[in-house]
Amino acid sequence: MSSPEPIAPGVWRYRFGTPEEASPVALRQADPALDRMAGLLPVDECPFAGADFSFRTERRGCVLTAPFDAEEGVFGFGLQLQSHLQSGKKKHLRVNSDPVADTGDSHAPVPFYVSTRGYGVLVDTARYASVYVGTHLSAEALKERAEQRLGQQQPGLSTEEIYRRHAFGREVVFDIPAAAGVDVYVFAGPTMRDAIRRYVLFSGGGCLPPLWGLKNWYRPFAKDGEAEVGALLEEFAKDGLPFHVLGLEPGWQTRSYPNSLVWSERFPDPEAFAGKLRSRHWRLNLWEHAFLDPASPIAEEIASHSADTLGMDGLVPDFFDPEAERLFAGEHRRLVKGGVAGFKLDECDNSDFISYSWSFPEHARFPSGLDGEQMHCLYGLAYQATVDRVFREEGQRHYSLVRSSGALAAPFPFALYSDLYAHDEFLRGMINSGFSGHLFAPEVRHAASVEDLVRRLQTAVLSPVSQVNCWYMPHAPWFQIDRQLNQAGVKMEGAGEVVKLVKQALELRMRLLPVLYTAFAHYHREGVPPFRALVVDTPEDRRTWSCDQQYLIGQSLLAAPLKAGERVKEVYLPQGAWRDFFTGKRLEGGRTHTLSDLSLADIPLFVREGTVLPLAESAEGWSGGGPLTVRLHVYGEEKAEGELYADDGETFAFERGDCSWTRLTWTAAGGLKADGCPSGEMFLLDLANPVLHAGAAPASDLP
Amino acid sequence: MSSPEPIAPGVWRYRFGTPEEASPVALRQADPALDRMAGLLPVDECPFAGADFSFRTERRGCVLTAPFDAEEGVFGFGLQLQSHLQSGKKKHLRVNSDPVADTGDSHAPVPFYVSTRGYGVLVDTARYASVYVGTHLSAEALKERAEQRLGQQQPGLSTEEIYRRHAFGREVVFDIPAAAGVDVYVFAGPTMRDAIRRYVLFSGGGCLPPLWGLKNWYRPFAKDGEAEVGALLEEFAKDGLPFHVLGLEPGWQTRSYPNSLVWSERFPDPEAFAGKLRSRHWRLNLWEHAFLDPASPIAEEIASHSADTLGMDGLVPDFFDPEAERLFAGEHRRLVKGGVAGFKLDECDNSDFISYSWSFPEHARFPSGLDGEQMHCLYGLAYQATVDRVFREEGQRHYSLVRSSGALAAPFPFALYSDLYAHDEFLRGMINSGFSGHLFAPEVRHAASVEDLVRRLQTAVLSPVSQVNCWYMPHAPWFQIDRQLNQAGVKMEGAGEVVKLVKQALELRMRLLPVLYTAFAHYHREGVPPFRALVVDTPEDRRTWSCDQQYLIGQSLLAAPLKAGERVKEVYLPQGAWRDFFTGKRLEGGRTHTLSDLSLADIPLFVREGTVLPLAESAEGWSGGGPLTVRLHVYGEEKAEGELYADDGETFAFERGDCSWTRLTWTAAGGLKADGCPSGEMFLLDLANPVLHAGAAPASDLP
Repeated sequence: MSSPEPIAPGVWRYRFGTPEEASPVALRQADPALDRMAGLLPVDECPFAGADFSFRTERRGCVLTAPFDAEEGVFGFGLQLQSHLQSGKKKHLRVNSDPVADTGDSHAPVPFYVSTRGYGVLVDTARYASVYVGTHLSAEALKERAEQRLGQQQPGLSTEEIYRRHAFGREVVFDIPAAAGVDVYVFAGPTMRDAIRRYVLFSGGGCLPPLWGLKNWYRPFAKDGEAEVGALLEEFAKDGLPFHVLGLEPGWQTRSYPNSLVWSERFPDPEAFAGKLRSRHWRLNLWEHAFLDPASPIAEEIASHSADTLGMDGLVPDFFDPEAERLFAGEHRRLVKGGVAGFKLDECDNSDFISYSWSFPEHARFPSGLDGEQMHCLYGLAYQATVDRVFREEGQRHYSLVRSSGALAAPFPFALYSDLYAHDEFLRGMINSGFSGHLFAPEVRHAASVEDLVRRLQTAVLSPVSQVNCWYMPHAPWFQIDRQLNQAGVKMEGAGEVVKLVKQALELRMRLLPVLYTAFAHYHREGVPPFRALVVDTPEDRRTWSCDQQYLIGQSLLAAPLKAGERVKEVYLPQGAWRDFFTGKRLEGGRTHTLSDLSLADIPLFVREGTVLPLAESAEGWSGGGPLTVRLHVYGEEKAEGELYADDGETFAFERGDCSWTRLTWTAAGGLKADGCPSGEMFLLDLANPVLHAGAAPASDLP
Repeated sequence: MSSPEPIAPGVWRYRFGTPEEASPVALRQADPALDRMAGLLPVDECPFAGADFSFRTERRGCVLTAPFDAEEGVFGFGLQLQSHLQSGKKKHLRVNSDPVADTGDSHAPVPFYVSTRGYGVLVDTARYASVYVGTHLSAEALKERAEQRLGQQQPGLSTEEIYRRHAFGREVVFDIPAAAGVDVYVFAGPTMRDAIRRYVLFSGGGCLPPLWGLKNWYRPFAKDGEAEVGALLEEFAKDGLPFHVLGLEPGWQTRSYPNSLVWSERFPDPEAFAGKLRSRHWRLNLWEHAFLDPASPIAEEIASHSADTLGMDGLVPDFFDPEAERLFAGEHRRLVKGGVAGFKLDECDNSDFISYSWSFPEHARFPSGLDGEQMHCLYGLAYQATVDRVFREEGQRHYSLVRSSGALAAPFPFALYSDLYAHDEFLRGMINSGFSGHLFAPEVRHAASVEDLVRRLQTAVLSPVSQVNCWYMPHAPWFQIDRQLNQAGVKMEGAGEVVKLVKQALELRMRLLPVLYTAFAHYHREGVPPFRALVVDTPEDRRTWSCDQQYLIGQSLLAAPLKAGERVKEVYLPQGAWRDFFTGKRLEGGRTHTLSDLSLADIPLFVREGTVLPLAESAEGWSGGGPLTVRLHVYGEEKAEGELYADDGETFAFERGDCSWTRLTWTAAGGLKADGCPSGEMFLLDLANPVLHAGAAPASDLP
C-alpha cells in the first residue's frame, strides 16, 4: 500500500496505480500558495494511514475506498444545488448544466470533500467519477444489519417509505472510469475550516476581485445597442439605483450561436463606448462562449488546434494546445486593451438533460491528447485560466463569470452561475460552493411576483456577485415583472414602490463593500471562503449540518435571506451572541429563532456580538468614482473589534505588499481606535461618529 | 475493416476489436428462432458494407460509428418514456428506475435501434453506452454549416430558442465504456417492420402468455391477509367486475425490505389459499424482488454466490453463477408447485435519481466475474430467465411482470412496469417498447380525478397487461380515489356510476381476448409486436413518425386512448380505410380526424376496413372458467377476413404444433366462412350470427 508523501504544509499525496497524465493537479493553472500555507497551524501527521485506503483497478477503471463512519458529516463535491450534507449519498461527478435531480451532475463538480472530522480529500481525476458516501454495506455486514432491522415489523406503504429504510456503509468509494491509477491528496485540519483553507491555499489562495466587481451588476436586453444602453443608464441614475457593472452580449453571437468575438454593428465604436461607460464609473463585462464561428478572425488559424467535433456548430478550441490558447488569448487582449473589464464565459459545460446535445461529446478528440470526457472536466478551468492570464499580463484585476469549473479553481476571480432558477437551490449552491473553492452568483432574472423579485434581489446583494440579468427583457423587472408585458413596454402598477425596495437592497450591497472586500482579502490570504456554510465554522454543532439556506459572510455576518412565501422564518444562530444588523437587537446563539411579521423590506442579517463593522456610508454620490466614506458600526456593549482591508482596488500591487489591514477596536470605556489608515484611495475612514448598536443603547440611524 | 458474417437469415455480424465476454448475445438465455426466421422474406445482402462503420478503441473504451442521414427516422433503444423519434438525440443507455428527463436512462435500455430505411442495428454490449443519433457535426463541416445558418440574423431570446438551432450530424455514434471491442448485429428488412421481426425472432420469438394472463389483474393492499382478499373477491363478484389475476405481496418483504421468499403468518396456508383462488378461476401472481433477507432458507447457501455488496440491505444473487441460479430457482419451484401462477420481479434495476442508492453499485463484484455495470445491464434478463425456466420445467406457461430488461428479451413472458406515472409517458413507453421486443404495463394505481381513473383504466385494458395495482390503498380506486379517504374507508359520492365505467372497460378487455391472444401468437411465430407504433407498419408516411400516443394492436386494431382533460382528440389514421370499433362508422385513412363531444365512456378504437374480428361474447358468466363464446364482427361492406389462433392456453403443447389458426372470411354475397375449428377448449366459435359493422348497414348490438 502507498505511503503518504508530504506535498505542502499539512497536505499529503498518496499515489495509487498509474495516474492519468491529464488531471486537475497535473494540468493546474496556478501554483500552490505555499508561503501563505505556512501560516496555518502545523499538522505533523497525515490524518490517514496508508491502510485506511484501499485501491483496485478493473476493466472499467479503478476503485478507491476511503474510510467513513455514520457519525461523520461529509460536504463538498463542488456546486451541488440539491443537497448539502453528502453522507449517505451517491454522486456522479459529471459536468452538466441542467442537473434535474440530486445526482451529482453539476456545472462544477469537484472530486473533493471535507469531513466534520477535520480533513479534506481530493481525488485528482479528470473523469466523471461516481462517489458513494457510505451508501452500501458489504456482504459481510448482512447479519448485523438484519439484527438492526428486527424492530421494523410493518410493511412500508409508499415507495419513499420503503427506500428510506437504509443503513450507512463504512466507506467513501470513488468509482473512476478509464483510469489505471489516481493520486489522492489529503488535507489536514485540525478543523474542517482549516482543511478547507488548506485546500484553497493549495489551489493558489482565494481570488481578490477589484472593488468595482463587488458593486451591483446589470445585464440588459440582448438586442440592445449603444443607444438603448445609454437610455438605461440614464434611467438608473434618475432612480438613484447604484449599478456599476454592465454586462453585454456585443452582437457576436447574434447571427447564430457560435461566437465570432467581433462586435456587431449595434456597437459601431466599441472602444469609445467602453470609454464612455468608464467615464460614468461603469465597467463593462462581455458575454461570450468559446465555440468559434467561421466569421471569427482566428477561426482559420485555430481550426487545427480545435476538437474534431463541433460544439454549438462552432470550433471548440483546445485550451491545452498552446497555439489555441495564444490565439484565443490574443482576441481577449485586444478586447481588454479596448476597455473590457471582464467576461461571462458561457456554455463551457455540457448537458445530458435537454434534448439537444449542444456541447462536444465525451468521445471528441483534442490535439493536446485529451478526450472529450477529460476536457469537460477541465474545460471551464482552462477557459478561466486563458482569460485570466490576459488580465494578469495587463496588470489589471478583473471579476468575471463562468458556467463551469472544477478542482483548484479558487484563485480565479470567476463566479459560477446557472440557467436553473429555484431560489432555494441558488442559496444552497452558493453555500455549497464554499466547500470547494468556488463562488456562485444567484442572479436575478425574472420573477413570479413582486415579492419573488424583491426576495431574489435581497439574496443577490448578499452573494459573491450582485447581478440582475435581464437579457431577455427590454426593461428592468421592477418596471414590469411579466415577461410579455415587459417586452410590450407596459409598466406595472406600483412600480414606484418596488423601485424603492430595489434601491434599498442595492444600497445595502454598497454599504457592505468594505466588509465584503475584507472577506475576500481573507480568502486570498488565509483561504477562508467569504461565503460559507455554518458547518464550516462549527462542525461540532450538528444542528448546523442541515443549514443550507443561511450562511456566513466574512468573519462576522450571518445571512438568512427570505424567499417568496416566507412569512415566518426559522433561523439557527450558532453558539455565542448575535445582533440584528439593522436594529442591533441581541439574539442568543445555540438556538433557533423564529422571525415573524416579516415585511418586504426585511432582510435577516446578523452580526456576531463584539464586532466593529466597517460600512460604506450611504451616499447620494454612489454613482461617482471617488473613495467610499467608511463609518464604523459597533455591535456589542463592552468591547468589540473588527478589521478593514484596503489596497488600490485595481492592480496586483497588493500581492507585493501594497495593501493595508486596519485593526479596529472599541471599548465602552475607551471608544474607538484604529491602528493606522487604509492604504490606497478606496476607503475614507471616519472614526468620529461610530454607530453603536447595543440594544437598549441609542437607536441606530438605520431603518 | 471487418466484413459481415451471416449469423441467421437476414442477420449479419460485424466484429470490431475484442468484444467483452459478458454481453447480451454471449449470455443469451434463449436460442434464436431460426426455423421461424426462415419464413421471412429472404435478403441476400447485408444492408451495410464494412466501410459504412468506423471503429476505434481509446482509453475510455471504444467508439463505433454507423451511417445516418437527416432524412432518416431512428426509433428504439428500449423502454424510452420521454421521446419517440430518436433522430437528433443523445441517449445514455443506463439502467435506471426513475428517468427524470429524456436522457436515455431507463428500466430497460437496449442498444438496438431500427430505421425507417428498413434495417436494425444491435450493438452487443452490457455497458452503459451513450448513443449519439446524428447529434454532432465533424469539425470539417464548419463552413458548410455556417452557410446554412446565414439566414439567422436575430439573436435568440430564450435558452430554448438558442439551443434549438442545431443541425443534424451524419453518424450514429456508440460511445462504449471499458470495452476494447464489440459485435454489431445488422438486421435486414426490407421494411422497418421486417427488421423488427428479425430482431424479435433472433431473440427467440415473441412470448405467448397463457390466456388467463391477458385477462384483468388486481393487486390489493399490501397489508391484506387471506380474509381481506376473500372479501375483495366477493365485492368484485357482486359488482360483476371480471378480474382473474390477483397480485400479492405475501408478507415476505414485511419485516423490512430484503426478501425471504417465505410467506408471512398473514397467509397461514399458502397452498390452500392458492387452491381456493384457482377454484374461483383466479390466478395468483406474487410480488418479490431478488435481494435476499438472512431469514430466507437459502440465504446461508447463496451468500458465497452473491455480490460482494448488499442491495436493499440484502444479498444480491449472481444469476450467472449456476449455484445461485439453482438455489433461487428451487425456491420458485416450491412456490409454483404450491399454486403460484406468476411473479412480479421488482427492484432489479437501479436508480441514480433518488437520494438513496438502494441497488448494488456499478463497482460491485460478482462470483461469475461480471462487474456491477455489466450485471445491471443483464440482471433483469437473467432474473426473468431464472424464473421462466422454472415454469418451463413445470410445463406451465406464465405471464409475469419485471421492472428491468434488456436486449433479446422478447421470448420471456414478462411485461415491464414503472413507479413513474405520467399517463402520456405510459402510453409512449408502451408504444416504444415494441421496437425492442418488450411489453409494457401502464398499470392503474391512483388517480387525480374520476376522469383520470377512467382514462387510465381505458389505456390499461388496451395494453399488454390490464392491471389495477392498489398496493397502498385498502379499497379499489373506484370506491374512493382520494388516498387518505380510501385508507379511512370513506366511499366517494357517485361511486356506483364509476363502477359502471370500470366494468365497461374491463369487459372490453374480456371481449378482445381472442384478438389479443391471436396477436401474441403472431408475435411468437412471426415476431410482429402485438402492441406497436404506427411507424412500424408505415415508415414511408412521415406523419406517423410523431404518433406516440396511439398505436396498433395486432393486425387490425388502432387504439388512441384518451387522457384526463382531453375533450377533443386528434387521431391520425394511416392510409386505407378504418371503422370505429363501436359504431362501425367508416373513416378515411391518410388523414387526421378530430374526435369531439367525448364522453367518459368513449374509447377511440378503430378497426381496419375489411376485417373479421373475433370477439368474446359479453357474458354474465365471465367469472367462470369455461370456454369463451366467440362471435365474429365484420368491419366492411364487400369482403373481410380475419383469423383466430387457439391452443390449450396453459402448456407448451402449442410449440409442438398442438394449436390452430382458423381463417375467417366473409363476403357480402357468401357470408361467413371458417376453415376449421379452434383447437383446445378456450374458444367456442359461433358462426351463426356475425355482427355486421358497415356504416349504413344494420346497427350493431353494441353501445
